[in-house]
Amino acid sequence: MPTLVVLDLVGIFVFAVSGGLVAVRKDLDLFGVLVLAGTTGLGGGFLRDVLIGATPPAALADWRYLLVPVGAGLLTFGYHPTLGRMERTVNVFDACGLAVFCVAGALKAYDVGLGPIPAALLGMVTAIGGGMVRDLLAGRVPVVFRGELYAIPALAGATAVVVGLELDLPRVGVALVGAATCLVWRLLAMWRGWQAPTPATSASV
Amino acid sequence: MPTLVVLDLVGIFVFAVSGGLVAVRKDLDLFGVLVLAGTTGLGGGFLRDVLIGATPPAALADWRYLLVPVGAGLLTFGYHPTLGRMERTVNVFDACGLAVFCVAGALKAYDVGLGPIPAALLGMVTAIGGGMVRDLLAGRVPVVFRGELYAIPALAGATAVVVGLELDLPRVGVALVGAATCLVWRLLAMWRGWQAPTPATSASV
Amino acid sequence: MPTLVVLDLVGIFVFAVSGGLVAVRKDLDLFGVLVLAGTTGLGGGFLRDVLIGATPPAALADWRYLLVPVGAGLLTFGYHPTLGRMERTVNVFDACGLAVFCVAGALKAYDVGLGPIPAALLGMVTAIGGGMVRDLLAGRVPVVFRGELYAIPALAGATAVVVGLELDLPRVGVALVGAATCLVWRLLAMWRGWQAPTPATSASV
Repeated sequence: MPTLVVLDLVGIFVFAVSGGLVAVRKDLDLFGVLVLAGTTGLGGGFLRDVLIGATPPAALADWRYLLVPVGAGLLTFGYHPTLGRMERTVNVFDACGLAVFCVAGALKAYDVGLGPIPAALLGMVTAIGGGMVRDLLAGRVPVVFRGELYAIPALAGATAVVVGLELDLPRVGVALVGAATCLVWRLLAMWRGWQAPTPATSASV
Repeated sequence: MPTLVVLDLVGIFVFAVSGGLVAVRKDLDLFGVLVLAGTTGLGGGFLRDVLIGATPPAALADWRYLLVPVGAGLLTFGYHPTLGRMERTVNVFDACGLAVFCVAGALKAYDVGLGPIPAALLGMVTAIGGGMVRDLLAGRVPVVFRGELYAIPALAGATAVVVGLELDLPRVGVALVGAATCLVWRLLAMWRGWQAPTPATSASV
Repeated sequence: MPTLVVLDLVGIFVFAVSGGLVAVRKDLDLFGVLVLAGTTGLGGGFLRDVLIGATPPAALADWRYLLVPVGAGLLTFGYHPTLGRMERTVNVFDACGLAVFCVAGALKAYDVGLGPIPAALLGMVTAIGGGMVRDLLAGRVPVVFRGELYAIPALAGATAVVVGLELDLPRVGVALVGAATCLVWRLLAMWRGWQAPTPATSASV
């Protein structure tokens, strides 16, 4: 479906820019920028496809899915000062990518025959996996673990999708509600500074 | 077989607690605790299943395998000071998890048709893989590489299983001998402070 | 084909030695040396096989592919001062491994039915993947990201292979041209100190 593909490509593009910016800040070379852009944009989907056995991943069978992160990487390489200043805008797009990916991931895992709980989890993995691989390759603890509410909105969106499918509601509506759940929650968390709970005084450990 | 499932779940639980404790010590948030608990408990089996092509992994098809690490993560999040003080007990349980996983991993790889050497290796990977993923995500070199005898007992247990199967000995006996080999060796290594050999004077490199 | 297998084993051996040397320099124990040798030698092929769904990976079905990295690891463990002094020689062998692997990876991905662009990318992944896993496990940012021209020659060699196959040229010739492209470029980059481009003044980010 064209709309879904366009959304998917937008998500990949935005994630790839975020990966490219991390690479620039780590002083990596052009190739490092392209690889981090590619793994951030495509990593979540690759993880999902490998786990559900849907190999080779869709992105390897469709050249548009490879062209987009390369384009995003080159753009970041050339215009990183500008993109770095647009951090607020990039973050909003990133939230859109998160929303698109958690829905697409949950739909695909559900269609492949996984039960509702694993399907919701894989939706979340699809949404946050690329960023986790980016942080591993860049040598830092995944930011998704550090306070900011990022994974929970993705899990909520994926859960909404799975619940809707279990209730046999129409697919398009389910997808929209799931994406909106994730997007609104994530944007509010960003703008209000909501944090995930942390362990009580870890000093005693 | 109920006994095997119970053992498997105990192993996942113990490994998940060890992952949750690492996350607490790294000051990660609730989500970081849950993810590290989940990847530590399930990561070894996921690695094995992806490598032998048995996807989706069993843990994604059985909700108990997902519930246990979530429960372990929440428990660790809430009671980490108590669990942290029980380090000796946790380590004994961890050795039990190691023994269960090296046997279960070797059995599964062998049943899938791998030869004896790869099956023994995959048994070891199943046992140590979760901890390695935990350490990667927590931003530290896998502790399994650092002196303590951890992987060798797992490899020994898996090897005992494979040798037994090649000799057509009864499965239950083979599993018990394999688990005992790994468990006893690991406990002795812990209590006697046995270390793996390190390279001679690396100063000259 | 015997020749191809011999080349493949040589590539695995050389990569495994490079992984073992990194482990020795990080003061890891014997097991750490063996695991880093094994993952560096076999990791690229494992990544490729998991991504294209060719599981279990070939290396798990052929004991020679397991024996070679173990041998390389033991050799490195015992003779690392000598091997460390032979760095120039090791690097030349490493370039040969890169050339062999980018060709073998691209051929396998193409044969499995992937399109030309994904097949070239997977050829590169096969060649550089082992080293990336090695660096992740050793707790450092992959060196392939840091200035030296390493991945681009591998991508060039894999691309030459794919273009040749698309033009229906004879397989052996295509493989030789691809390997020569990668090898010559890599050796020149090493000897002339060619670097990959880095982002313009990242100070402003």
